[in-house]
Amino acid sequence: MQKQEGKKFTSSLLFTGGVSILVGIIIFLIPIPQSLRDVAELVPARNAELGWRLLAIFVATIVALILKPFPMGTVCFISIAVLAVTKTTTVGVALSGFSNTTIWLIVCAFFISRGFVKTGLGQRIAYLFMKAFGKKTLGLSYSFIISDLVMAPAMPSNTARAGGIIYPIIRSLANVFGSKVEDGTERKVGSYLLYTTFQADNVVSAMFMTAMAANPLAAQIASDVLGLQISWMQWAVAAFVPGIVSLALLPLLMYKIYPPEIKETPEATEIAKKKLQEMGPLSKKEKQMIFVFFLILVLWIFGPNFRIDATTTALIGLCTMLLIGILDFNDIKTEQSAWDTLVWFAALVMMAAQLNTLGVIPWFSVTVTNSVSGLGWVVAFAIIALAYFYSHYFFASATAHVSAMYGALLLASVSLGAPPLFAALVLAFFSNLFMGLTHYGTGPAPVYFGSGYVTQGTWWGYAFLISVINIAIWVLVGGLWWRILGLW
Amino acid sequence: MQKQEGKKFTSSLLFTGGVSILVGIIIFLIPIPQSLRDVAELVPARNAELGWRLLAIFVATIVALILKPFPMGTVCFISIAVLAVTKTTTVGVALSGFSNTTIWLIVCAFFISRGFVKTGLGQRIAYLFMKAFGKKTLGLSYSFIISDLVMAPAMPSNTARAGGIIYPIIRSLANVFGSKVEDGTERKVGSYLLYTTFQADNVVSAMFMTAMAANPLAAQIASDVLGLQISWMQWAVAAFVPGIVSLALLPLLMYKIYPPEIKETPEATEIAKKKLQEMGPLSKKEKQMIFVFFLILVLWIFGPNFRIDATTTALIGLCTMLLIGILDFNDIKTEQSAWDTLVWFAALVMMAAQLNTLGVIPWFSVTVTNSVSGLGWVVAFAIIALAYFYSHYFFASATAHVSAMYGALLLASVSLGAPPLFAALVLAFFSNLFMGLTHYGTGPAPVYFGSGYVTQGTWWGYAFLISVINIAIWVLVGGLWWRILGLW
Repeated sequence: MQKQEGKKFTSSLLFTGGVSILVGIIIFLIPIPQSLRDVAELVPARNAELGWRLLAIFVATIVALILKPFPMGTVCFISIAVLAVTKTTTVGVALSGFSNTTIWLIVCAFFISRGFVKTGLGQRIAYLFMKAFGKKTLGLSYSFIISDLVMAPAMPSNTARAGGIIYPIIRSLANVFGSKVEDGTERKVGSYLLYTTFQADNVVSAMFMTAMAANPLAAQIASDVLGLQISWMQWAVAAFVPGIVSLALLPLLMYKIYPPEIKETPEATEIAKKKLQEMGPLSKKEKQMIFVFFLILVLWIFGPNFRIDATTTALIGLCTMLLIGILDFNDIKTEQSAWDTLVWFAALVMMAAQLNTLGVIPWFSVTVTNSVSGLGWVVAFAIIALAYFYSHYFFASATAHVSAMYGALLLASVSLGAPPLFAALVLAFFSNLFMGLTHYGTGPAPVYFGSGYVTQGTWWGYAFLISVINIAIWVLVGGLWWRILGLW
Repeated sequence: MQKQEGKKFTSSLLFTGGVSILVGIIIFLIPIPQSLRDVAELVPARNAELGWRLLAIFVATIVALILKPFPMGTVCFISIAVLAVTKTTTVGVALSGFSNTTIWLIVCAFFISRGFVKTGLGQRIAYLFMKAFGKKTLGLSYSFIISDLVMAPAMPSNTARAGGIIYPIIRSLANVFGSKVEDGTERKVGSYLLYTTFQADNVVSAMFMTAMAANPLAAQIASDVLGLQISWMQWAVAAFVPGIVSLALLPLLMYKIYPPEIKETPEATEIAKKKLQEMGPLSKKEKQMIFVFFLILVLWIFGPNFRIDATTTALIGLCTMLLIGILDFNDIKTEQSAWDTLVWFAALVMMAAQLNTLGVIPWFSVTVTNSVSGLGWVVAFAIIALAYFYSHYFFASATAHVSAMYGALLLASVSLGAPPLFAALVLAFFSNLFMGLTHYGTGPAPVYFGSGYVTQGTWWGYAFLISVINIAIWVLVGGLWWRILGLW
């Protein structure tokens, strides 16, 4: 039996790995389009041959990230090695992503978010809001969303936040109310709370540059291809109004169309009270964690005035935690998700940057531009943005999706006449909102779906509805808000 | 009790940490020497102010690595943050070490060496040699040394090799012969075998660029300060003759002056036979590991002819292991020693490179040169090299020592007239040989010393004797051999 499974595993690996390699080879064998050569000739650093070879390796990488013959890290190490061996880039350039400051912002933030989990502060926050708003099921859903929102600025792993801290609390709560989960048809409180919290988490992820791993990547790419600098504070202010509107409406909407059977939940308040009693008063470590949290928040907001950038701030936060003993170096060494992210992030950031340098992204954007030109920028940008949003049905990771498409589509939108900052923000926010479309589109999705409370049909159906509402809120309310802010 | 220990811990931390910071502040407050300003003015990229500030942070880092208020990784993260916050370098430069190709050579080699441990191949090698040469205690000592030597090209962690694979085998063997260890006075086979193997491991570490983590660092610094390229093959050939002479003599010497009480050990052969029987025939994974080992060895030797450098080779080796399933990405994420090494290595390499760029290393070398000039290069280099060797009494890590002194002393030696490659090799080999001086000078030292078989007096006494003999062999036999090779 085991042997057979091993065999099945191997043949599936050979198939998915083979398809990835095949796609790369096919692209490599296609003659280089004259249009790419034309675009490449405009700038000395560009190179159509190397660019095309890089594109083949890059697309093969993206296909492999989707088909998953291996974990992301393995795929990305292989891509780095292939780049170096084929001399598409030097080994130095292939490794250059590892010292990218954006990547270290995220790596440090992973370490910092470990402090929330290790000190128990994350749990306490969730129980506090649960105690305050938990008398009704609707209030409960808001309490989880607010907890999520409070932690989001310093926790770029939506999986750690929604999956690691909040999910276990909802699950144990749902058990108290005795929900049966089998086929998703009986739902006392679990189905409503889990699905609403999951969808809200994607909105929360959009609200801060440091609330989701791919956000700084989008900002970095916007800077690479357009020279557009988006600061931490600018992102937070821009996202605030559409984000709050989304978060306010979402639980109400789901309460109407997907109501929980039990609507009064006095037990939840009791549970929260008991858990908080067990936890006792704020521990010293928790107080220190609160201090660090506000320290980095203040530096992220006001640091740019003193030329302290976001990565330096994250380093300061990390070192403070190490110095005062919230974390020790063992926590750092064993924080697997950070090292995992470092590897795949470094490879993708490097390839995205090189695709731009070698002229492939400018060429792709010219191609897109030509195909929708003559439509006026509003229609053209709407087509591009919607295509970007709904192509997430094909992606199992926001990061893979952002690296694959964000840069080229942003450049195309701007050359079609869309205001740069408006286009950059809409596409960046979409990069979070689209995570809700499927039960595999982002880290927490399989966790929440795996609970069994929501069937796939229900999940996808409501997800589509929510996607339409979110797009409307973020483009219309958001666009108006950014106009007021003078961002475009 | 626990609380008191905590207090003691905190006060020792405050003391050692405080001393480190104080040293940095004192250096920072010393007026910048005019001689540094003079040296800095010669090259535009140099900067006496920033260089002096970097020196203060660097020395504080080295002091902290010696006093250990925190683990190496924590100290190095703090140094990176301090560099960025004080704007001594940009945050980009402070993080630049993380994409250094030399560092990734070592990080990949850590992953590769995990394959030796995971597949059991490392153990099998040790038992094979034990079976072949283990009838006498003297033969046993050679069998452990040869095992060590065989694994060394692909295992840059001397701690993993000597401490992780070989040490447990010697310990369990010593138990069979019933050694009492209490005060190091009774020694049947354990004392002799452990001490000899430990000292030999330092020689083995000197023999390949990839046999000890600080070796590529030395090669990198030689390239930074002198533009001298030392290839993997060049290193191995140069080290071969003096290395083999050292390894041949060491067990004989210790057998004379520190003899084991039991000299015939037929039981050892039996144990090895039994263990090999238990292991059965070579497993598929072990065969694959042997294949990868030879693959990277061949590429390290012949790769430069096809412009495949050592880091690319290590990446190929790693990816091959991931592809054929010797390792999975979980092994990578959880290989703490690799991530630990990445952090402190990146910080030290970056600071060493910046000290050179900003003019501090050239200035220090001019100062050393002036103080021993007029002596003729032979005497001057002898003084410098011996000072370098015996200053290891003050270091708990070869890497810290190499980063602190190798570059400046090499530059000084060369400006005094020493042949560049000769000086670079002698100092590089010394960087391994000096690890045997104390029971804290390198990773395996506390492991072997901690066994209790050898008292500190015995350890230090014989260590000094061995150091003199090693220096004679490596300078005289080595020097002659390199002359024959035409290296100088």
